[in-house]
Amino acid sequence: MLDKVLNARSVAIVGASKNKTKRGFQAIKALQNEGFEGEIYPINPKEEMIAGLCCYKDITQIDGPVDLALITTPARTIPGILEQCGKKKVAGAVIIAGGFRELGTRGKALEEEMIHTAQKTGVRLIGPNTSGIINLKSHMNLAGIPNVPQGKIALVCQSGNMALTLITEATVRKHEGFTYYVGVGNESDIKFHEYLEFFRNDPDTKAILMYVEGMSEGRKFLQEAHKTSVEKPIILLKSGRSATGKKSAGSHTGSLAGMNEVAKPAYERAGIIVIENSDELFPVANTLASQPAIKNNAIAILADGGGHATIGADLLSDYGISLPELTEQTRNKLRGILPQAASVVNPVDVAGGTDSDPSLFADCAQIILNDPNVGGLLIVGLFGGYGIRFEQSLAIGEEAAAHQLGNMVKKKKKPIIVHSLYSAYDSHALDLLRHYNIPVHDSLDVSCKCVASLCKYGAYLKSYHAVTNFVFNWHARAKKTGQQIIAKALEENRHVLLENEAKKLIKLHGAPTSVGHVAKNETEAWDIAKKIPGKAVLKIVSPDILHKSDACGVKLNLKTETEVKQAFREIIKNAEHYLSGADIRGVLVTPMAQKGLEIIIGTKVDEQFGPVIMYGLGGIMVEIMKDVTFWVLPVSPTSCKKMIEDTRSSVLLDGVRGHKGYDKKSLKKLISMCSELIEAYPEIEEMDLNPVILYEEGLDVVDARIILKKPLPGT
Amino acid sequence: MLDKVLNARSVAIVGASKNKTKRGFQAIKALQNEGFEGEIYPINPKEEMIAGLCCYKDITQIDGPVDLALITTPARTIPGILEQCGKKKVAGAVIIAGGFRELGTRGKALEEEMIHTAQKTGVRLIGPNTSGIINLKSHMNLAGIPNVPQGKIALVCQSGNMALTLITEATVRKHEGFTYYVGVGNESDIKFHEYLEFFRNDPDTKAILMYVEGMSEGRKFLQEAHKTSVEKPIILLKSGRSATGKKSAGSHTGSLAGMNEVAKPAYERAGIIVIENSDELFPVANTLASQPAIKNNAIAILADGGGHATIGADLLSDYGISLPELTEQTRNKLRGILPQAASVVNPVDVAGGTDSDPSLFADCAQIILNDPNVGGLLIVGLFGGYGIRFEQSLAIGEEAAAHQLGNMVKKKKKPIIVHSLYSAYDSHALDLLRHYNIPVHDSLDVSCKCVASLCKYGAYLKSYHAVTNFVFNWHARAKKTGQQIIAKALEENRHVLLENEAKKLIKLHGAPTSVGHVAKNETEAWDIAKKIPGKAVLKIVSPDILHKSDACGVKLNLKTETEVKQAFREIIKNAEHYLSGADIRGVLVTPMAQKGLEIIIGTKVDEQFGPVIMYGLGGIMVEIMKDVTFWVLPVSPTSCKKMIEDTRSSVLLDGVRGHKGYDKKSLKKLISMCSELIEAYPEIEEMDLNPVILYEEGLDVVDARIILKKPLPGT
Repeated sequence: MLDKVLNARSVAIVGASKNKTKRGFQAIKALQNEGFEGEIYPINPKEEMIAGLCCYKDITQIDGPVDLALITTPARTIPGILEQCGKKKVAGAVIIAGGFRELGTRGKALEEEMIHTAQKTGVRLIGPNTSGIINLKSHMNLAGIPNVPQGKIALVCQSGNMALTLITEATVRKHEGFTYYVGVGNESDIKFHEYLEFFRNDPDTKAILMYVEGMSEGRKFLQEAHKTSVEKPIILLKSGRSATGKKSAGSHTGSLAGMNEVAKPAYERAGIIVIENSDELFPVANTLASQPAIKNNAIAILADGGGHATIGADLLSDYGISLPELTEQTRNKLRGILPQAASVVNPVDVAGGTDSDPSLFADCAQIILNDPNVGGLLIVGLFGGYGIRFEQSLAIGEEAAAHQLGNMVKKKKKPIIVHSLYSAYDSHALDLLRHYNIPVHDSLDVSCKCVASLCKYGAYLKSYHAVTNFVFNWHARAKKTGQQIIAKALEENRHVLLENEAKKLIKLHGAPTSVGHVAKNETEAWDIAKKIPGKAVLKIVSPDILHKSDACGVKLNLKTETEVKQAFREIIKNAEHYLSGADIRGVLVTPMAQKGLEIIIGTKVDEQFGPVIMYGLGGIMVEIMKDVTFWVLPVSPTSCKKMIEDTRSSVLLDGVRGHKGYDKKSLKKLISMCSELIEAYPEIEEMDLNPVILYEEGLDVVDARIILKKPLPGT
Repeated sequence: MLDKVLNARSVAIVGASKNKTKRGFQAIKALQNEGFEGEIYPINPKEEMIAGLCCYKDITQIDGPVDLALITTPARTIPGILEQCGKKKVAGAVIIAGGFRELGTRGKALEEEMIHTAQKTGVRLIGPNTSGIINLKSHMNLAGIPNVPQGKIALVCQSGNMALTLITEATVRKHEGFTYYVGVGNESDIKFHEYLEFFRNDPDTKAILMYVEGMSEGRKFLQEAHKTSVEKPIILLKSGRSATGKKSAGSHTGSLAGMNEVAKPAYERAGIIVIENSDELFPVANTLASQPAIKNNAIAILADGGGHATIGADLLSDYGISLPELTEQTRNKLRGILPQAASVVNPVDVAGGTDSDPSLFADCAQIILNDPNVGGLLIVGLFGGYGIRFEQSLAIGEEAAAHQLGNMVKKKKKPIIVHSLYSAYDSHALDLLRHYNIPVHDSLDVSCKCVASLCKYGAYLKSYHAVTNFVFNWHARAKKTGQQIIAKALEENRHVLLENEAKKLIKLHGAPTSVGHVAKNETEAWDIAKKIPGKAVLKIVSPDILHKSDACGVKLNLKTETEVKQAFREIIKNAEHYLSGADIRGVLVTPMAQKGLEIIIGTKVDEQFGPVIMYGLGGIMVEIMKDVTFWVLPVSPTSCKKMIEDTRSSVLLDGVRGHKGYDKKSLKKLISMCSELIEAYPEIEEMDLNPVILYEEGLDVVDARIILKKPLPGT
């Protein structure tokens, strides 16, 4: 429970100082100046009094209870201090010092010692390598950032500078403020997902804003995010996507940056609003914290000039948001109050209609939001600046409109977002909108992104029931024969299943595949092959040869006895040549598959998220176009459909150029089976079904490779 | 020549008024208040004096010369007023009124009447439907926007609100200002390209910033842009990309929004920096107006904290910009002045090294810019805010650094871009940077886009010699036989060449293709087919049947006499069934092409840009992945290479999965030939070579379709 840590009622400053340039002095002054309601205990063996407070030799000397320690001393002192904190039953410690894992081997050892001490003593750690934390409600400012605005957003940040950026932005642009700020630092003890859980349960927090460079417990994070985002939105920017960015993040917080192809869709499945441009991070959080989500993906634009409307329509269209037609009734009502030149289709352009009375904006907004096709309203242009740009007296009408707009959102439960090119000016009308929690942006691009995020969050809330919760029920549907196949390999100290074993395993769980038979000599090969109605394929079977083609261990299109026997001989010869002394178990004889559409399915264990699955079309679509999709396992049968649709080539499955289309039902079943298999046999490290041939009806897993974990689990 | 119009020394205000709310009053006051240096003549038959100036009954009554008329009266009055302007030999008129083509048929007729009058009288028109123009140098403000900052950017804008947005941004963010503002409006007379020519020749303009919704003379614009961008950068945002955006732009300025797939690459070929997010428009123009271009696509980042460096590295990597390694010497020098925890690889992180003395930023910058691998520097983080965030006295060091940085750019000819989260605060150091023309941004995203634009512009300047100038030399390499083929079709009143004619034409210009022979009956068909070494293909020949497959008019893989004759009979029967009474010229017999890689090449006449060519891989790559590229013709042999590389699938041509690759040389030659053909025969409206089969060596144009212009040119 982080309650005692983040809502601490008493704080000890370890490393308190009289030197005004030291963090140990500034931290105490910050608590005093901001009016922290709890106890403050300076700790410094050499001082009597600091900033008017009695100073303690060490934390155990304090009489009353201590919830939290802010430790400002260097890295090497930390384990010792934590021992004392443990004795004092301190709930948590914020560790400012850097110099741990981000500095390499020596730092890593020190970090491990620190974690060990923390676990032993029960003290929970924030950081190290953090800028600190702030609780805005109790005025516990342990980050040394002054004038942080209070509000409804919890900020969880893995870079002190990014926190400062977001806080500055909130201040300068008069956005919503914060409930808490947590600098996660190296995430040595308390993990991202624990903060999520805490903020989910905090009634004052309406949105959670996260800047992540890397996280160590990806799957637990997804699980908590999945629980959280249905209650309140999570807005996240993950940096370190590029190779250089990753390098930079690595030297920064010392944690591994995650692979974006896996992370982004996984985050989104957990309902997280993933942001890629840092400009959008705060405004989107602000919008989601204060405005209702849009459930029908449809928005109307209200403009007082063409340019903004056109750009806005372009951007929203890029985001896949519809600008629905307005009903005849809506259009008639708008015509009734707007000049003839006005455009009453969506985007609505008042065409000078508001020039003499900007309060008309509210009347238009009311009419538009009453339209059943419209899920929300984006006002773009000069609103809030009529009194500045034209005639001061017009400000009255704008203020009247602002009040009306503010009440409209509450009543209609449809959001209003305002873009105003006067948002940086002193405008009472815009301040009123902010008072009513209507976001005001000077950027049209950012305004559209906010609309898009309201749509995305709305869509998530609608589809929530269909989403898997990222929890494995290990061994759930394991079969005895399957366990035996794996056990046999393990007994032989193999971490690779032979092709026939792998095929047997997947067939056991319902995958359509020809297992075939292993021939020990050319006569056996022909005995098997001659029973195959069409042509045959021969493939080397050896635990030492993973890539059969590389070893010239595959022969296709074989029909006659001569062909089959010659193929057998050549395969064996090639294998011996490829790897002398290889453990050759024989040659697998299977029927040659009919032509169809080539599919690739693979699973692996991702460092951050655990088991993930990849799906895509084979050939150039995967190799050149990189048109594949990665999903964190397990996947529900429903989400298999979504997974297939995530690839651009999925339209091919529906049939093009006169083709009738392919058996998507069987494909979905196969993906489901893979998910089930990984859940059933935790011993599996990697599985490759490549190629799978998809037909108009049915499919055929032509090759299967399964690699087991090494070192084996439990050994 | 627009000189007399945009640099007018005398202005008549037609529709001058004593009513303070009228444009006809405000315009005069604006000229007076801003100190316009020329003559001002109010025109109003009912008044004697307006704003202290003598008022004239009509423009012809004025004694002195009049360069420019600002007409604020309604649409219907314009043609009459222009007649009078003509008599007075006024060089140009700015027409504010809307109510022309954007309102439909009636408005369009009025606009045409107006254009006719303008052409007859020689008066050049700006607008109609414009917010006006401003010459900041002569203080001729005819747009009614107050406090426009003067500077080095010419603003050409097709939306008054977007102009206001950009001017507001320049003011609020203390960016560079403007030389001119032109509201293009409906672009009825003076076109975008004429403004380009004017601003190219204006010595005070260092960059041209354009917001375009649609333009009527795309090709001339490209030609002027090509001449201009090598001298000064053009920065352009084209809105109306989406269907809804297009609709909105249509109702706005009444001009057709251009197809983005054609427009964007064409603009970029002409050296234009194309912007898609309106937030980036002004900052990029500001950067390009004030900083040297980056020629080696390589930048270094200097940061005072990890988060910004990581995000910046991600974004720059997305833009394809390299963050080169620093030399050993550079790293050693940095180590010499930075603390041990600092990162001296790129991104450089000072890791607290500037905390006590921010002037160190300049020393680091100096060392980094001396590195031969580095083309420019991006400083990210808190610079300019040390005095605000930490200790006021630190501002001195920041100011010292600002002076050094300013002089460094001048000396090293390498750009510096600064991201500062204190850019909205009052910081003398940041103001100093601005004084030295170093752009300062509060947005990290925008900062990176500015760097990317400097790289893009630098790359253009380097490759300028290889770019075609968008000028056709019509009929240049026409051949007599080719002209005869076209003439014959025209004589027959056909606007479609028969397949054999089309193939003859392209073969004449060197395209590898089997023209084949037309058989009139089945015996002739077999006579032709039996001479073909491999298999034959039979195809219907009829000017009435454009889509041969739809009419079941194609038979493949024919070998025997029976097959060929039967195919002939079926094709004729199918064609008669498909379109009874069709003009059937016979059946074309050609060799069956070998298998290879399917390519599509097509040309058409684009409404905005004239002839364009499309290239792409056939099959799913064009149909599903839309992996095609459109280029405005003509294309130089050099640019054919670039055109092929523009498709993502181009790697396929180099050979994958063990394939040796395809004959790119022949493909480039074929594209070149298409360009030559369109130039040689202006009668061609559309040409389709589909499919072209590409081999390891050589290629084969299997089908060709050429459609001629209709109505025919000159008739």
